[in-house]
Amino acid sequence: MTNLNTTHDPGLRSWVDSANVAGSDFPIQNLPYGVFAHPSGADHIGVAIGDQILDLTVLEARGTLRPGGERAVFDSGVLNPFLDLGQPVWSDTRRALCDLLAAGNDTLRADAPLMDQGAVQMRLPVRVSEFTDFYASYEHAMNVGRIFRGDKAALVPNWLHMPIAYNGRASTVVVSGTPITRPCGQIRPAPDAPPVFAPSAKLDFEVELGAIVGTGSAMGTRLSTAQAQASIFGFVLLNDWSARDIQLWEYQPLGPFQSKAFGTTISPWIVTAEALEPFRMDPPERRTPLLPYLHEDSPNAYDILIDVWLATQGGAGRVISRTNSRHLYYTAAAQMAHHTACGCAMRSGDLLGSGTISGLTPDSLGCMLELTQDGRAPLAVDGALREFLEDGDTLGFQGRCTGDYTLGFGTCAGQIRPAT
Amino acid sequence: MTNLNTTHDPGLRSWVDSANVAGSDFPIQNLPYGVFAHPSGADHIGVAIGDQILDLTVLEARGTLRPGGERAVFDSGVLNPFLDLGQPVWSDTRRALCDLLAAGNDTLRADAPLMDQGAVQMRLPVRVSEFTDFYASYEHAMNVGRIFRGDKAALVPNWLHMPIAYNGRASTVVVSGTPITRPCGQIRPAPDAPPVFAPSAKLDFEVELGAIVGTGSAMGTRLSTAQAQASIFGFVLLNDWSARDIQLWEYQPLGPFQSKAFGTTISPWIVTAEALEPFRMDPPERRTPLLPYLHEDSPNAYDILIDVWLATQGGAGRVISRTNSRHLYYTAAAQMAHHTACGCAMRSGDLLGSGTISGLTPDSLGCMLELTQDGRAPLAVDGALREFLEDGDTLGFQGRCTGDYTLGFGTCAGQIRPAT
Repeated sequence: MTNLNTTHDPGLRSWVDSANVAGSDFPIQNLPYGVFAHPSGADHIGVAIGDQILDLTVLEARGTLRPGGERAVFDSGVLNPFLDLGQPVWSDTRRALCDLLAAGNDTLRADAPLMDQGAVQMRLPVRVSEFTDFYASYEHAMNVGRIFRGDKAALVPNWLHMPIAYNGRASTVVVSGTPITRPCGQIRPAPDAPPVFAPSAKLDFEVELGAIVGTGSAMGTRLSTAQAQASIFGFVLLNDWSARDIQLWEYQPLGPFQSKAFGTTISPWIVTAEALEPFRMDPPERRTPLLPYLHEDSPNAYDILIDVWLATQGGAGRVISRTNSRHLYYTAAAQMAHHTACGCAMRSGDLLGSGTISGLTPDSLGCMLELTQDGRAPLAVDGALREFLEDGDTLGFQGRCTGDYTLGFGTCAGQIRPAT
Repeated sequence: MTNLNTTHDPGLRSWVDSANVAGSDFPIQNLPYGVFAHPSGADHIGVAIGDQILDLTVLEARGTLRPGGERAVFDSGVLNPFLDLGQPVWSDTRRALCDLLAAGNDTLRADAPLMDQGAVQMRLPVRVSEFTDFYASYEHAMNVGRIFRGDKAALVPNWLHMPIAYNGRASTVVVSGTPITRPCGQIRPAPDAPPVFAPSAKLDFEVELGAIVGTGSAMGTRLSTAQAQASIFGFVLLNDWSARDIQLWEYQPLGPFQSKAFGTTISPWIVTAEALEPFRMDPPERRTPLLPYLHEDSPNAYDILIDVWLATQGGAGRVISRTNSRHLYYTAAAQMAHHTACGCAMRSGDLLGSGTISGLTPDSLGCMLELTQDGRAPLAVDGALREFLEDGDTLGFQGRCTGDYTLGFGTCAGQIRPAT
């Protein structure tokens, strides 16, 4: 089902020179969508190209690009109306943008609505309808299960049969760069001690890939994995910030709640599923056969290398983990098929977190809980030691795909502010 | 803090005669808000009065009522814009409506925009931002804990310290009268057997009170219980339909997901917190002292009697349980304070389910799982036996408060359709 077309041609170049620089996150083959604060005061929609943003809100107003025909879809400051138009329109728009930006096309050159990425503030690209967070990395499930429940009960018996998930909180999904305030909550200072209300002392990150649902499904409708794959608009990097001490005390029997609800950061640029076509691959081999509704006829996993870096206040920082979304046991398509299995309705702007992506080696783990073995093996960063995250620390991800060309996700980062 | 005013005067009568009939759910002291399908094709906002609806969308267009001043708030087909105006405006509007509808006031009589409740279809009263479902009845937690985890581990150790909750699914919250399709999902036919994908054979209801958040809170802000109480606009009856067999297999370690996501029904009329003032009371005595952030200085529980009735296809049905929201150990104010404890942002239209309300006696239990002891003691209804809900069954709630006068919530009901 891998569906390459001319927009994936490795030889393509843009008249925006910075897009042609080797190693740019945003060559003409990428064209990810985002929302930025336009100097006029309104939020505009754009695609990233090199170190610039092409302003689609302006192009639509000029009539150069009319994906919704009569109806404007780039004037609301969020991508949801464009997403609702569906896959054929997304694909036509990609082709039109690729054409407009290709070297040799002079249509826009005289008066191109380009903004310098460094000069504008990015916004959340979509109005997040709901946020669902999965638990799809076998290595992460095993590692965390061992820490929370011991070796014998590490992997819950359902894990190999279904993509386990919980509903997260959409109201605190924020765009990269938004500070994260250390949460307070109920914590037990010692096992069996009564709880106290205090700032979390085990503030953690979780590196994830976030799928953005483009077209939804009606209540009572089940999507096949193929239908699910076709309805995913694109992907972002996602940090599911977590307070481990709050989580440990609250999560039984109904799952994580306040330990995850204080903030979730996503990268500002949605890299489209179509841009990621050349980087599709099969997920890891099944350890147990899955029920038919979770079968996949196409390679729905992605080969995306993700670096996690940590810097102390004012420090240079370093990469503390390098992982890859190819390690995820369940694909976003399988997760979404499972999500609708009971008839749950989906909507444009639904955000599906993959779950923490942990690799097979100690330097590819996806959270501090695993990297430091719950604080027992602190990490050295900028001359300091870190069991968990401290106030002033900045934690970020960079993601990129490499093949005949490279494309990237930009940055997903946040700095920790002290508890209030 | 109980704050009675002239709108609570038991002697008040309306010129809408049906509002003065003893036992009406909607006397002039109630005035709950809802949204209905106007014959024009648009969704209008109204308050229930007797067997009529006073059309606020029309009153606002006429200029009789302008709660938002220049800005129209009753023209969008959902109550969220009105809710965003805040408590003082809600209160002023209640007083104005009470005045307009009071016996002796002739302002509207010549050309009153009244609709017969029986003649229109009700809609969801708010755009549900997010849905959080709590677990606040001690009796329910004990009963279900025994069934799922045995006597010794029935009550999880955190339960007496915090209002336990999970994030539910907002996309499938529907208004009373919407059919509910039996969900399919992964079920284990026997303990330790591999799962199959099949229609749920243990379809259940849960009787709850739903709090509608009126004014929200910013990310990073904690609300006190008093602030939380003041930000709740009102209450509905809520049925958290549940598939017990899917739930049992999926709920570890991250909580219920597909077993709850196929549908949640709410009653169409939001009974305002102000209308419920005369029916406030203290929650049950604390079994263990709570942390200070959960302390309450005012009686934030409500004395609402709720009947649960079940009818087979074409049958007359009967009341199978009679419970009362006074049994809830945690109040909506405490739940919302806990919800924001980590800095979680709240928004108008957030829906907080109380959790299943089970009373102290076998005839006051809040779900089939408890009423039939997981199917071991079937209920007789219309000459048939029910372990759980069957296709064609209709399950509904009626809620009412009784004191110097009676006010009601209307109906929260749904019929079960076969799995697809």
